[in-house]
Amino acid sequence: MGKYLVLQTDFGLGDGAVSAMYGVAHMVSDDITIDDLTHEIPPYDIWAASYRLYQTVKYWPKGTVFVSVIDPGVGSTRRSIAAKTSSGHYIITPDNGSLTHILHYQGIDEIRTIDEIKSRLPHSEESHTFHGRDIYAYNGARLASGEIDFAELGPVVSAETIETLPIIEASIKQQILEGSIDVLDIRFGSLWTNIPLAFLKQADIQHDDQLQVTIFHQGKKVYQNIMKFAKSFADVNIGEPLVYVNSLVNIGVAVNQDSFSKLYHIGTGTDWTIQLRKAPKIIFE
Amino acid sequence: MGKYLVLQTDFGLGDGAVSAMYGVAHMVSDDITIDDLTHEIPPYDIWAASYRLYQTVKYWPKGTVFVSVIDPGVGSTRRSIAAKTSSGHYIITPDNGSLTHILHYQGIDEIRTIDEIKSRLPHSEESHTFHGRDIYAYNGARLASGEIDFAELGPVVSAETIETLPIIEASIKQQILEGSIDVLDIRFGSLWTNIPLAFLKQADIQHDDQLQVTIFHQGKKVYQNIMKFAKSFADVNIGEPLVYVNSLVNIGVAVNQDSFSKLYHIGTGTDWTIQLRKAPKIIFE
Amino acid sequence: MGKYLVLQTDFGLGDGAVSAMYGVAHMVSDDITIDDLTHEIPPYDIWAASYRLYQTVKYWPKGTVFVSVIDPGVGSTRRSIAAKTSSGHYIITPDNGSLTHILHYQGIDEIRTIDEIKSRLPHSEESHTFHGRDIYAYNGARLASGEIDFAELGPVVSAETIETLPIIEASIKQQILEGSIDVLDIRFGSLWTNIPLAFLKQADIQHDDQLQVTIFHQGKKVYQNIMKFAKSFADVNIGEPLVYVNSLVNIGVAVNQDSFSKLYHIGTGTDWTIQLRKAPKIIFE
Repeated sequence: MGKYLVLQTDFGLGDGAVSAMYGVAHMVSDDITIDDLTHEIPPYDIWAASYRLYQTVKYWPKGTVFVSVIDPGVGSTRRSIAAKTSSGHYIITPDNGSLTHILHYQGIDEIRTIDEIKSRLPHSEESHTFHGRDIYAYNGARLASGEIDFAELGPVVSAETIETLPIIEASIKQQILEGSIDVLDIRFGSLWTNIPLAFLKQADIQHDDQLQVTIFHQGKKVYQNIMKFAKSFADVNIGEPLVYVNSLVNIGVAVNQDSFSKLYHIGTGTDWTIQLRKAPKIIFE
Repeated sequence: MGKYLVLQTDFGLGDGAVSAMYGVAHMVSDDITIDDLTHEIPPYDIWAASYRLYQTVKYWPKGTVFVSVIDPGVGSTRRSIAAKTSSGHYIITPDNGSLTHILHYQGIDEIRTIDEIKSRLPHSEESHTFHGRDIYAYNGARLASGEIDFAELGPVVSAETIETLPIIEASIKQQILEGSIDVLDIRFGSLWTNIPLAFLKQADIQHDDQLQVTIFHQGKKVYQNIMKFAKSFADVNIGEPLVYVNSLVNIGVAVNQDSFSKLYHIGTGTDWTIQLRKAPKIIFE
Repeated sequence: MGKYLVLQTDFGLGDGAVSAMYGVAHMVSDDITIDDLTHEIPPYDIWAASYRLYQTVKYWPKGTVFVSVIDPGVGSTRRSIAAKTSSGHYIITPDNGSLTHILHYQGIDEIRTIDEIKSRLPHSEESHTFHGRDIYAYNGARLASGEIDFAELGPVVSAETIETLPIIEASIKQQILEGSIDVLDIRFGSLWTNIPLAFLKQADIQHDDQLQVTIFHQGKKVYQNIMKFAKSFADVNIGEPLVYVNSLVNIGVAVNQDSFSKLYHIGTGTDWTIQLRKAPKIIFE
């Protein structure tokens, strides 16, 4: 069976940091396959780290160990924790909110704390600023390789004690759908909302229906337009907006072959909310 | 024998898309090695996708499976196809022109269509916008691992039926060489033409000869200069232009330790053509 | 035992160059694991290449083969060399200064030259501009896989004959510490000096002491401030500067959650020097 260790950081790939994490993990075991989630999480952006885990973890084989190190509090008293998700994956990360989306949308079975004094790369005690290498890659590789099991990482802690970021729930009331714009499909600038496809079905919205899309920033309307609920980007003309189902089976808003985010200066996070409804039918008599 | 799956996309590495492709492929098989061609193809740039395959495929072991997903028409009626190249490699890609250079310069033995309904990641039916994960990585891993063989991907289609982009043939007439500027050596800004070294030999051009280089955009002259046909960049001074043989044994034009493309605003594609000839000898009497 | 080949270049990941290196190495052997140090060394920046090797090599298993190709002199008479480091790793690289930091700070046991005519990818003779693929990845894979041993790469040469870049030694005199700013922690903009933690101990500087930090460019003072010697970034407020111990157990200077380099326009290299001392105590009577 494959033994996978998958790394996520905000370190970028421009220096030797990620490579040192790979090297340390390979020193622990030459029997694991190491891959990346992404290393381009914007610096200190725990929300993005949490979302990218939610987006990706379940597409990996059960038992895969994820290490996620977006860690503005490195060296402080924030804990290092390891989670076993309900989907059968492991995530090792600072306790700073990185598990928010997985906990909320997919579930976590058990969380343990890691003793940063005992469980660290031997002879790394003098450095307090690179736990990605000294704590996370090291323990991730020990767990992925089977050198230790999950219980050996440290004592169980309650899920209620871990840090989480505030989330806005998607809602549906009288056929009006509301949610937040959680993240971008980065290269293409499409908006990914937290409104599930199921809500569109509840509101009896079908492919090819015209929808009214309204976007708010801190409650203030910043965009409104009517666009098609399209099955694919190619269903609308180049340069035309559309509503579509993204790869997490949530609702996305995009412009075919352009960046919605850049064109209309739309950002992400709980400050950015969105409302969808069937467009009022205009009847000419 | 190694079982290699190599991925190319325009998704970038900034979010979880490429990692989800890796995960799906590893779920299919833990017996394959997955690597990247590049994920930084400019969005929707099928020409670049086609060229990067041409540049890279033959340097991988025979039997390697390439998956190339630059797919502006995802979810439309464009086909998904799989090619067996004359060099003994496999490429799985949307049928939108991504095979143009391989077909033209290296040859393809057989092409098959993939049934997107039957041959897809189980339970991925609701999403129509991420075939990279649901169709291409999934089938690429099945082929690379040997779970299925090439014939099981789907029925044979004629090479005449696949989409190709227009190519300008390099030519040589009366010692004058002409061709197109197909692509950049991205980090360094050197121009890669489609003029083969063989043409220089036919025109009796030797290393250290002075050549007249003329560049046209849509037929209009935009650059002309005399420069050396150098064996290596170090044969000219820093900041000096040169003609050289690139890693595909075609003719390149560069500035030593600077970007020719940026300095002279030269782009790529069939709109950008180039002419080379021995520089007229100036004889002072 | 794992057989690791680790690649570093200034090629970027935007085209097919790095992938062709991977492919060539896999053609040599399907029994090696290939990973990256970084491919984003600034073009032609041999100093950065040398530093990133120094930063990373020792965190990989002994026997790992590194290939580092920052090679402005490709195709010239500069030699190709292979080094066995005192830490038990191998580095194959152009002889242009890439071994400067490893040689100075960690030590090299033996250096050999590679015959670029005999030891190259078969049928690659026509191209003189991509030794990364034709010489370095090829020989790196032969060494990593055990197809050849170190002695078979070529004859021994003296360490005195290889190219090195000038280094400024860190110094301590009368409790004043001086050194150079060698490199950035790229994504975060922190300054990494060559002053070791040991010097702070000698100067009896403890965590939480206030230090006076002065930065010079070509000998001219460009920055001076008083800041804490913090155990971790979280020990100071967001936006506040600090002195800290970096992951190589050298002294770093940073701003918590901001870029020191960008805020104060500080660069790297031997032109950029730094002085640290205990801040004079101001006593109000």
